[in-house]
Amino acid sequence: MSITQAEIKQIRSLREKKFRDAYGQFVVEGEKMVQEALQSGFEVVRVLRRDEIGEAAMARISQLSSPSPVLAVVARPAPAAAELQRGLYLGLDGIRDPGNLGTILRIADWFGVETVFLSEDCVELFNPKVIQSSMGSVFRVRAVTAGLPELARRFRGAGMRVYGTFLDGNDLYRETLRPEGLVVMGNEASGIRPEVAAEVDARLLIPSFGRSGAESLNVAAATAVTLSEFRRR
Amino acid sequence: MSITQAEIKQIRSLREKKFRDAYGQFVVEGEKMVQEALQSGFEVVRVLRRDEIGEAAMARISQLSSPSPVLAVVARPAPAAAELQRGLYLGLDGIRDPGNLGTILRIADWFGVETVFLSEDCVELFNPKVIQSSMGSVFRVRAVTAGLPELARRFRGAGMRVYGTFLDGNDLYRETLRPEGLVVMGNEASGIRPEVAAEVDARLLIPSFGRSGAESLNVAAATAVTLSEFRRR
Repeated sequence: MSITQAEIKQIRSLREKKFRDAYGQFVVEGEKMVQEALQSGFEVVRVLRRDEIGEAAMARISQLSSPSPVLAVVARPAPAAAELQRGLYLGLDGIRDPGNLGTILRIADWFGVETVFLSEDCVELFNPKVIQSSMGSVFRVRAVTAGLPELARRFRGAGMRVYGTFLDGNDLYRETLRPEGLVVMGNEASGIRPEVAAEVDARLLIPSFGRSGAESLNVAAATAVTLSEFRRR
Repeated sequence: MSITQAEIKQIRSLREKKFRDAYGQFVVEGEKMVQEALQSGFEVVRVLRRDEIGEAAMARISQLSSPSPVLAVVARPAPAAAELQRGLYLGLDGIRDPGNLGTILRIADWFGVETVFLSEDCVELFNPKVIQSSMGSVFRVRAVTAGLPELARRFRGAGMRVYGTFLDGNDLYRETLRPEGLVVMGNEASGIRPEVAAEVDARLLIPSFGRSGAESLNVAAATAVTLSEFRRR
């Protein structure tokens, strides 16, 4: 297999969001991630191996400082809509850091949360750092962009509760948590927006211990603790 | 206040580990971090403000892509030794990612773990990414470098248990967890080393749920869930 200069240039352009948007494609790298892509429902446009295209071409198309031996170009799926069934869902209100979003998708995957709702201002799902830090969970967890206030009202209309984490919420360990509903996690710096907070039924806090001086937990760590509390028996 | 070219060069050099080692100093940036440093037991060598040294000098000494208005040069404390008192401790076996180490220090701080033991091959505590992702917890949580197998034997000799997380451990939610002892978390890719695992009394697993395809949780997320289980009442 060979690769043309034009193809190199096109794949290389996918490191920028405007070209990911224009082509409707993104890149994943590494044997494990490429296997995950091939086994997923995503359309894999092309798989490129260093053995076949050569080290120099691989270095040009790779987005990693140490290019991996294999890379895939994957088509972005059509935006998903979600029918609400009874179960546990996650809503992310303005998560800006790609490492956090990827890690949260991995956490949702671990705790069996199949659908994650993202507010419109979350970091782009196909940002390379999101993809890599999700460790393949981006292929397994369904991500749906949604207006969170309207979504929260849909949950409440369907008889499910809306939970949110707040620094002045109620002790998570003492609340009755039903494994049905929407759990909202807020922006790294400013938390959950007022218009979303207004739709929350139960305000939760992960208590700190001892003479802690920490002002908050990282949002991915807080997501892990919160989902663990919903799932533990 | 003014700053000389030689001083700029010296502070700039602190972005490299060999110079942090040579000078015994590291840099923190941002109003909040500098305040934390000043309130900590650490010796603050110098505080430099953009207003005083000018934008160009600040851009040269800053390690951030957007230089913050204030930066401090801080002396590294002498290596600490730890006397074991009854309480909950964390041991990190080969944590390599600076963002993970900083986030874990922040989690330890939140859950009231005052001392964290680091194996010799953990990423350097004063790496700028560790400092920044700890959000100031590096000034509050005592970090002690230690050989973990010997340390584990000291805990057991003092009548405290050694816990570790493993992908084939026992359900964390069903174990009796006493808030005294050492909790060991392993390397991002390879987990806890055999010679440390040999000293573990209780092998713990955070169970996954549903038809999860995720192979593991990120180590910082796993630390948060584990410490939450030890602390929850």
